[in-house]
Amino acid sequence: MGKDTALIIIDMINKMDFDGGDKLLENSLPVAERLHKFKKEFKKQGFPVIYVNDNFGLWQDNVSDLLKECKQGRGKPIVERMIPDEDDYFIIKPKHSGFFGTQLSILLDQLGIKNLILTGVAGDICVIFTANDAYMREFNLWVPVDGTASEYNDDNENALRIMKRSLFARTEPLNNNKWQDIFNNPE
Amino acid sequence: MGKDTALIIIDMINKMDFDGGDKLLENSLPVAERLHKFKKEFKKQGFPVIYVNDNFGLWQDNVSDLLKECKQGRGKPIVERMIPDEDDYFIIKPKHSGFFGTQLSILLDQLGIKNLILTGVAGDICVIFTANDAYMREFNLWVPVDGTASEYNDDNENALRIMKRSLFARTEPLNNNKWQDIFNNPE
Amino acid sequence: MGKDTALIIIDMINKMDFDGGDKLLENSLPVAERLHKFKKEFKKQGFPVIYVNDNFGLWQDNVSDLLKECKQGRGKPIVERMIPDEDDYFIIKPKHSGFFGTQLSILLDQLGIKNLILTGVAGDICVIFTANDAYMREFNLWVPVDGTASEYNDDNENALRIMKRSLFARTEPLNNNKWQDIFNNPE
Amino acid sequence: MGKDTALIIIDMINKMDFDGGDKLLENSLPVAERLHKFKKEFKKQGFPVIYVNDNFGLWQDNVSDLLKECKQGRGKPIVERMIPDEDDYFIIKPKHSGFFGTQLSILLDQLGIKNLILTGVAGDICVIFTANDAYMREFNLWVPVDGTASEYNDDNENALRIMKRSLFARTEPLNNNKWQDIFNNPE
Repeated sequence: MGKDTALIIIDMINKMDFDGGDKLLENSLPVAERLHKFKKEFKKQGFPVIYVNDNFGLWQDNVSDLLKECKQGRGKPIVERMIPDEDDYFIIKPKHSGFFGTQLSILLDQLGIKNLILTGVAGDICVIFTANDAYMREFNLWVPVDGTASEYNDDNENALRIMKRSLFARTEPLNNNKWQDIFNNPE
Repeated sequence: MGKDTALIIIDMINKMDFDGGDKLLENSLPVAERLHKFKKEFKKQGFPVIYVNDNFGLWQDNVSDLLKECKQGRGKPIVERMIPDEDDYFIIKPKHSGFFGTQLSILLDQLGIKNLILTGVAGDICVIFTANDAYMREFNLWVPVDGTASEYNDDNENALRIMKRSLFARTEPLNNNKWQDIFNNPE
Repeated sequence: MGKDTALIIIDMINKMDFDGGDKLLENSLPVAERLHKFKKEFKKQGFPVIYVNDNFGLWQDNVSDLLKECKQGRGKPIVERMIPDEDDYFIIKPKHSGFFGTQLSILLDQLGIKNLILTGVAGDICVIFTANDAYMREFNLWVPVDGTASEYNDDNENALRIMKRSLFARTEPLNNNKWQDIFNNPE
Repeated sequence: MGKDTALIIIDMINKMDFDGGDKLLENSLPVAERLHKFKKEFKKQGFPVIYVNDNFGLWQDNVSDLLKECKQGRGKPIVERMIPDEDDYFIIKPKHSGFFGTQLSILLDQLGIKNLILTGVAGDICVIFTANDAYMREFNLWVPVDGTASEYNDDNENALRIMKRSLFARTEPLNNNKWQDIFNNPE
């Protein structure tokens, strides 16, 4: 795996104050821990990290406002764990898919990215639909089984199954020793 | 429900000669029967029907060639049941979603469509990902539980569940007496 | 003209430190004055203002950084004249067209906009190509002859002529008494 | 120049029975002759040819119908000169730009194309706006000065000037001996 791999973190900057947000929060907390750790290792090796995040109704493309807004919601502990570094990319998305109405596709081209590690929430909403848009644009996908969460665990598993079967996504867990081989050895 | 509703028929013009195509064919045959019947009733009432169909590697936008090609495959009995009428629209798509790299969005705008009845195959691939692209463009969705099929029934049910929860799709069966009420009475 | 009209301000938050930026700056200064005045009147009447602006190589969607960056360039006097208000929308674009890789289209739909007043720089680059993307999405266009500038005046006039002929854009000047009639009375 | 170059022929399959179509026809006839000749040479060397053509209100993606329809219009002599070969690609477009609502982008990716020779009509409408969409997607452009036509020659020249300045398009004529060097030697 060269530097043509990016870590995509979806909707972890999140107010979580919708119906069912408490359950999503509960399921997301351990994901945030794991992502925090993985991200650190990943960046040490020089790979780019791209946040792709809902605009939460803010239509000034302004990350600082978004962070402030989301810290005031139920999602605060996760926001604090996942604060983007200054050298992380941050793309604001208005809809489910990270590619719809955003500059994600253009950024990935400029960075020469071929492989995406898709993580974040919710597995059965924004992750799965971002995954398909990535697949249609010919990216190789790894959606770590322990790197996403949904309101219901069953739904998260269903979404993973569909991504595996329909988009040929790999789903090995984040904390495996050989993650660098995933994109080199297609099943 | 006004004339702002269209029936979308996905990938039923299909060679089905890929791995697992035999199972998909088996599950699709009864769907073809139901769609054939529903389409007739639907058109009698003046609603538009839009085929949205894989290009099967043909890059001349030519429906006649596509029909000929697919009749030579395993999907022949379904192709014959689903032959488009001269006044049906026919959009060729190169990837999973019917909106990606096609004129579907423009056609729907020109027709003034607000509601989509999504049908066809496979439920866990092209139907679910077309559904999300439709949802992001603010269409109301009805994905009849007996109007789609996948290679495995479990996967079809999973896909329906995700479309229901994440895209607020209705899933009542095709042959109900009150389908005209579905888009008028959001749950 | 109802509230279905938006003022689009293109690339006026601009470093202008590329080749030819001095000429563009010179031609843009009077445009900034006129836009500043028009914007104030326009907002008083309750219409929305949307900045659509180059990212200048910043890939964190962060307006505050962008303003800071551009104030350090040659474009400073224009940036200061055109500082967005808190209730203005601000869309960051990565390429020539304001619709390419941005949430502009989605925002305009949500606001119920049908008519666009396109202004800013450069007339023969980002304005003309944003105009075509708007036209293809069925927006009515007014590109005020004194609301855009290019490096060369000839090129600005050529661009206006093409927008007029090929996109049916109106080009009356900003400071006319009857601008509200422009979208009501197509030529 | 490797095989990463494609010849794009825009809207030459054309009824030309709109206002001003007679002038466009007159200006297009010599272009058709030159394109016919160039296309033959170009294909001999193994390069792909892609027609990108208006749908003329037909929403069944069906090239054969389109050819039939256009032969009945004023554009007949050009249609007959430009009949696509069986191995030419044919993309139907619903709007000005060849990339909007079409599979052009996906096809070019699959063919590994980096350089586009843009030709056809009208220079100040579909050619210029296709050119910008190509430029935003990082293609290198050659728009031969004698390979496009518009209703008015002045407008064609203006459009070429904008493509040259704003999109860095080369504009050497078709019949030069060294066209293969154009993409190898950026100005």
